[in-house]
Amino acid sequence: MPTNRQILLKSRPTGAPSTANFELVETAAPAPGDGEVLLKTLFLSLDPYMRGRMNDGPSYAAPAEVGKPMVGGTVSVVAASRHRGFAEGDVVSSYVGWQDYAVSNGAGVAKLDPNVVKPLSLALGLLGMPGMTAYAGLMEIGQPRPGETVAVSAASGAVGSVVGQLAKLKGCHAIGIAGGPEKCKYVVETLGFDACIDHKADNLRERLAAAAPKGIDVYFENVGGATQRALWPLLNNFSRVAVCGMIAAYNEPAGQPGPDLRSVLVKRMTVRGFIVTELWPKYPQAHRELAGWYHEGKIKYREDVVEGLERAPEAFLGLLQGKNFGKLVVKVA
Amino acid sequence: MPTNRQILLKSRPTGAPSTANFELVETAAPAPGDGEVLLKTLFLSLDPYMRGRMNDGPSYAAPAEVGKPMVGGTVSVVAASRHRGFAEGDVVSSYVGWQDYAVSNGAGVAKLDPNVVKPLSLALGLLGMPGMTAYAGLMEIGQPRPGETVAVSAASGAVGSVVGQLAKLKGCHAIGIAGGPEKCKYVVETLGFDACIDHKADNLRERLAAAAPKGIDVYFENVGGATQRALWPLLNNFSRVAVCGMIAAYNEPAGQPGPDLRSVLVKRMTVRGFIVTELWPKYPQAHRELAGWYHEGKIKYREDVVEGLERAPEAFLGLLQGKNFGKLVVKVA
Repeated sequence: MPTNRQILLKSRPTGAPSTANFELVETAAPAPGDGEVLLKTLFLSLDPYMRGRMNDGPSYAAPAEVGKPMVGGTVSVVAASRHRGFAEGDVVSSYVGWQDYAVSNGAGVAKLDPNVVKPLSLALGLLGMPGMTAYAGLMEIGQPRPGETVAVSAASGAVGSVVGQLAKLKGCHAIGIAGGPEKCKYVVETLGFDACIDHKADNLRERLAAAAPKGIDVYFENVGGATQRALWPLLNNFSRVAVCGMIAAYNEPAGQPGPDLRSVLVKRMTVRGFIVTELWPKYPQAHRELAGWYHEGKIKYREDVVEGLERAPEAFLGLLQGKNFGKLVVKVA
Repeated sequence: MPTNRQILLKSRPTGAPSTANFELVETAAPAPGDGEVLLKTLFLSLDPYMRGRMNDGPSYAAPAEVGKPMVGGTVSVVAASRHRGFAEGDVVSSYVGWQDYAVSNGAGVAKLDPNVVKPLSLALGLLGMPGMTAYAGLMEIGQPRPGETVAVSAASGAVGSVVGQLAKLKGCHAIGIAGGPEKCKYVVETLGFDACIDHKADNLRERLAAAAPKGIDVYFENVGGATQRALWPLLNNFSRVAVCGMIAAYNEPAGQPGPDLRSVLVKRMTVRGFIVTELWPKYPQAHRELAGWYHEGKIKYREDVVEGLERAPEAFLGLLQGKNFGKLVVKVA
């Protein structure tokens, strides 16, 4: 049996996590039983939601268990199969977490078409959870109409970059908010947003206002915090806020003050939180459309690939600080 | 010409208004021109939204003008008609504001059927704007399903009392929040809510939690402030918050902190502000249904009738402090 490296959740963080919350252990890879496959991880996805899984307490998904491998989406190759639905060598999307090998009964495992999902890591980004998050959240909650202004935070990231490009494809004015001049340049020049505001520079509200002379009709919220406070007064009557993530707040205690709901009343706004798994089934066409636009060059997608499972904790901590540039994936094998 | 008493907005308040913001003047009643009617006010509605009209600055309706009669819904009798659509003696709903007489070209004036709208003042309450606010806001945003828990603040009032009774008719568990034991007793014993919590007593959150053992699925928000903060943590996954009013905040400067939007994300909540005029047309059956339920005794409606136009300012200030008990109307003539 090959060696199986696993990165366990060693302890739950209070506030910002550190590498001490993780532990790398080595065991023997498990053997598949009847009706099972052995999956070998090729790519591991690192995503902001994982910070929530490190906490105990009620949320929309069960917490990761202390002493178990951290959870996470993966692209795997079938290393051995005793399952009629899978053959050795099949490449699949899976959710086996931060480890080299895992045994699965096939639940939640889906074969990938390497001609469509090319590179394979796109199954963790544009053609996976983040891309579907962008698509479903923007269409279902944002309901962008041509000529409207759509703003998205974390605009160079796995989700935000897709939101803004979809908004442009829908005929909207797209404004990104990102951290630092390099990301902002990329958002405008490569992704084709109309403007991108650096949230690390001064006068955030004034610069946002200047970029949105007609106000903001749709805000796709990935960050919360100071960006949310600066942007909120620019929201128009009947605006829609899709609350997808609040990465700036993930390390804070819950119950921080948010926007005055009088604004929601006076402007007849809709503010709605969502997670992708609950909306995805309503958009069966999304995967095909996103793949088509990508291969036609109408949607660009940038990945930030870290080599080696052992670097996952450090890369994940960087993600929470916005150090990645593009969709963060770990190349495991 | 008869004398026309008018109550003008004399000045805009900063913070809580006072009687000094109003001025009673007497002029001669106007004469109707060709195509016009002279309306004599029978009842004037006093509603929380009028506090917003006293302010300058952007909102969902233009501010009331300083030096002009305060705006407001009215029931009037046609005192003279040079309009083909109206005859002397017709009773109409109108929006002529705080005065005895007004001339109208008929825009926004609708004849009332005294056999249905009985008493006539119901046109300012259950069978007018407040009733439609309750109906449309609850149905459109709340979308109550049988067995769910619906909470409403200002539960003995013009809107809240209807919300809770509609929730009961829909098979929901209805919880009211009201000010003081007398109102709470009325909400439970007369209106038939399952529970009513006195927001003036201690331990508001604990008592709300005890009244909502399965959490809250729909919150119809009329008040904001401490009630909102106490109730927010009890909202369930996929809950809906209809933001109808924030009377506790109307005298505060804008931009007070509201709820943490992380709760909206984690619980996939929908929070939506509305004003009745934008939803009313979607519910053409509402007037008929509300009238039917009222005359069958399935919906109770309490009015707090103040006699005399000159008492409108004082009564309105009391409304902002929750001193009224039931829908506040002024009997003008």
